[in-house]
Amino acid sequence: MAANKDNFCVIMGGGIGSRFWPFSRKTLPKQFLDFFGTGRSLLQQTFDRFRKIIPAENILIVTNAMYADLVKEQLPELSDEQILLEPTRRNTAPCIAWASYHIRALHPDANIVVAPSDHLILKEEEFLEAIRKGLEFVSQSDKLLTLGIKPNRPETGYGYIQIDEPVGENFYKVKTFTEKPELELAKVFVESGEFYWNSGLFMWNVNTIIRAGELLLPELAAKLGPGEKVYGTPEEKQFIEENFPACPNVSIDFGVMEKADNVYVSLGDFGWSDLGTWSSLYDLSPKDVDGNVVLKCQTLLYNCRNNIVTMPSGKLAVIDGLEGYLVAESDNVLLICKKDEEHAIRKYVNDTQMKLGEDYI
Amino acid sequence: MAANKDNFCVIMGGGIGSRFWPFSRKTLPKQFLDFFGTGRSLLQQTFDRFRKIIPAENILIVTNAMYADLVKEQLPELSDEQILLEPTRRNTAPCIAWASYHIRALHPDANIVVAPSDHLILKEEEFLEAIRKGLEFVSQSDKLLTLGIKPNRPETGYGYIQIDEPVGENFYKVKTFTEKPELELAKVFVESGEFYWNSGLFMWNVNTIIRAGELLLPELAAKLGPGEKVYGTPEEKQFIEENFPACPNVSIDFGVMEKADNVYVSLGDFGWSDLGTWSSLYDLSPKDVDGNVVLKCQTLLYNCRNNIVTMPSGKLAVIDGLEGYLVAESDNVLLICKKDEEHAIRKYVNDTQMKLGEDYI
Repeated sequence: MAANKDNFCVIMGGGIGSRFWPFSRKTLPKQFLDFFGTGRSLLQQTFDRFRKIIPAENILIVTNAMYADLVKEQLPELSDEQILLEPTRRNTAPCIAWASYHIRALHPDANIVVAPSDHLILKEEEFLEAIRKGLEFVSQSDKLLTLGIKPNRPETGYGYIQIDEPVGENFYKVKTFTEKPELELAKVFVESGEFYWNSGLFMWNVNTIIRAGELLLPELAAKLGPGEKVYGTPEEKQFIEENFPACPNVSIDFGVMEKADNVYVSLGDFGWSDLGTWSSLYDLSPKDVDGNVVLKCQTLLYNCRNNIVTMPSGKLAVIDGLEGYLVAESDNVLLICKKDEEHAIRKYVNDTQMKLGEDYI
Repeated sequence: MAANKDNFCVIMGGGIGSRFWPFSRKTLPKQFLDFFGTGRSLLQQTFDRFRKIIPAENILIVTNAMYADLVKEQLPELSDEQILLEPTRRNTAPCIAWASYHIRALHPDANIVVAPSDHLILKEEEFLEAIRKGLEFVSQSDKLLTLGIKPNRPETGYGYIQIDEPVGENFYKVKTFTEKPELELAKVFVESGEFYWNSGLFMWNVNTIIRAGELLLPELAAKLGPGEKVYGTPEEKQFIEENFPACPNVSIDFGVMEKADNVYVSLGDFGWSDLGTWSSLYDLSPKDVDGNVVLKCQTLLYNCRNNIVTMPSGKLAVIDGLEGYLVAESDNVLLICKKDEEHAIRKYVNDTQMKLGEDYI
């Protein structure tokens, strides 16, 4: 099937992935890593996936300026015009707003799929079919569409979407977005059949999202809207450098999706994971008889249960008597902590930065 | 005080130090490492120490042929003639026998101190004074002398020497040598005041030890004794290559000291440790308020107590929730195990060698 030239893809690749520190480093975050040793990083996999249904020249990467070289190295197919470099770290709303204005200048009636760069999709065919149908759905109406994932467990690490009435095969109006729930509530969500995981992947027509932004995030629109005449021209870079840093730090979920009244969800089961935590990586990975997960490295494990161990490839870890731990080494940092206390990783990163500086971040 | 030209020192430096794996590696064993970051390895410290009372040219290193380059690199002061290279790994009796025959050929009435290359001595002045007096003691009589250390705790990792009647200031006849005791027995030993740690450091006249060897280890004497005419000549190397591998694998303690009837002990308190185990290193090292010992590396420790952590210098270990563990990384191996289960290290080394080969040993 020929790719629809009206369809665009925006891959968001500016995160620093600190929850996977020290495996993910500020200079080489999660999306640039090949987690499972497949030969392609998560970003490359994301690009490879969308290229099957979106014209390659319509795929844009928005990332932080400090990752420009990494993106070019990993995706040499991209022209410089396809890489939008944020001069400073903001949240997803400014990222998506800029990409939307930029695309509208090139292609005033584009349909866009916006995707994170660091998620895992195991059922690619089903996924791409859902994206195709979703882009068609948003091309025909001024609806904001998000992808909802059928939950297979009461995961407390994800946000949930409650569905309302169906509006077509697999399309539903969204009733509410909810934050990450406590375990008891997550169990109720899953049993109800009404709640789906929020994947953070969106589809819409470029005019629909720009209108929604103008309505719901006027402060943001006031910063980036006036650049209409420079987007897609050599002046765009300077305009962004002057205005992007002044954009409000707000997520697209909080700023738009949770507030708009034209939000719909497409449902599916794609073998999806946001790979957000070591625990999610543990859950996804093959285990030995004692429930240990070993990524990339050699290990000899004695009296060890339910650990996740990752070291630079070729290294050997000999471990005796650990249960439920994460042992992760990368470059000049070794981290050993309880696998279920990984929310503390942000604290470790902050402490490390404060006490020892950037070399270990 | 001028060094006595009749005095020789034999430093035994051929061990592989597997109890300190992975810090100590087959290609770079314990004696070649600078454990405390002082700038000198244990071997270099041993040499530096004896050079203060023994003429430098009278100090010999006996080591395995595979460590020849390491010894020359660490002790460039030594001439090739001062390095005796064992073609194969034997125990201490063949090592000492060869060194004794070799020295007698050069200096027929030499007094010799034989010392391990990998021990720690904190009170150097007291130690050297005891060596001086010991060498004088053995120069005047055909006695085998060993150095006994006043025990400061009921250590179960050392052998003990029971003393008999005194024969002079700090010199006693030895009543028995004992193997490493259980804790209860070790407590009795220490309380009795009759038992001293066996340091594995010996002094004797060259003729005394050769006679003792001929009497108590005739099989060994039969192999190395016939080389009398080649020791100290260019033919020595070939003679050793032919005969050394056929020597019985026996320790000087078991083969001579425990059986001879002319064994004496000189007592002292020298801040001595054989650095035989991670635990002994832990005991000797400065600790943080939670009882953690950190060697060489950077650490951020949370909820950690009584651990010992060593990583390559410059590396950072972030550890949360370990108590009583050893975390040791060197080169391509990381070891995590309970600090008091370190007798298992031999098992780890064996398993690693069997399953993964020499690269990790």
